[in-house]
Amino acid sequence: MDRLEFAGHCPIESAMGVVGSRPAMLIMREAFYGTSRFDDFVERVAMAPATASTHLRALTKAGLLQRQPYREPGGRTRDEYALTPAGADLMPVLFGLFEWGARHTEVQPLVDFAHVGCGHPIEVRVQCTAGHDLAPQDIEWRPAAAEAGDGRRR
Amino acid sequence: MDRLEFAGHCPIESAMGVVGSRPAMLIMREAFYGTSRFDDFVERVAMAPATASTHLRALTKAGLLQRQPYREPGGRTRDEYALTPAGADLMPVLFGLFEWGARHTEVQPLVDFAHVGCGHPIEVRVQCTAGHDLAPQDIEWRPAAAEAGDGRRR
Repeated sequence: MDRLEFAGHCPIESAMGVVGSRPAMLIMREAFYGTSRFDDFVERVAMAPATASTHLRALTKAGLLQRQPYREPGGRTRDEYALTPAGADLMPVLFGLFEWGARHTEVQPLVDFAHVGCGHPIEVRVQCTAGHDLAPQDIEWRPAAAEAGDGRRR
Repeated sequence: MDRLEFAGHCPIESAMGVVGSRPAMLIMREAFYGTSRFDDFVERVAMAPATASTHLRALTKAGLLQRQPYREPGGRTRDEYALTPAGADLMPVLFGLFEWGARHTEVQPLVDFAHVGCGHPIEVRVQCTAGHDLAPQDIEWRPAAAEAGDGRRR
């Protein structure tokens, strides 16, 4: 298989097309922290309202966020944004970036993350489905298996 | 703790400053696939040589790649690029993006990944150190523990 055949078939590239910018990724960070309102996204990501608007719309269209109307007592109806299952599925990327940035840049995070109830700290692991932790040299690529009718790879 | 105090302390943001662009992330993808030579990066990422040069230099300066001289028989000495440990540590992010893009965009990858020898497919998991798989609602943040003298959190 010629590596140049991969062009146009790379899910890393298509994912970066959706979340591969600072505002998009930081909006997703905020959605994980529980931020839902437009003004809070603007303030907490420190971005211009027009930038927030553009990226919130794009992330909603791409299916990572969903808009829900809400109304404060006496106020007018506004939209708030909530994570969809596709948005929640970005969790390994966000935690992976957090761990990488904490280890390899100058930034000292003010928070860390724990399993609710259990209390143990959180980590992102690349494993095989047999449960082995993997380093880059432990991984090989192979032509993708056809998708079986039951949705499982064969 | 006021969420606005987090500004300037977010490792996701600092990581995005290093790898948060299409060319940077795709150069890292290529380094994982084993690409090492300048012309191969240019061709396989489909970017202009000037773009490749800028990003390879930045990723090298940030410590994700290292330059090593090589010489083909009869040729002049050139540099090739290899993953450093900090670059290899980006693996959860790259595989996380791969999985997310394969699940939630239109792109159908031509390859998948397996554990060498073992043969089982690869996945990225967010777990606590007690080994529990976690969903977003299972995770809480807390003020970061002080770093102990032995480099472990306490």
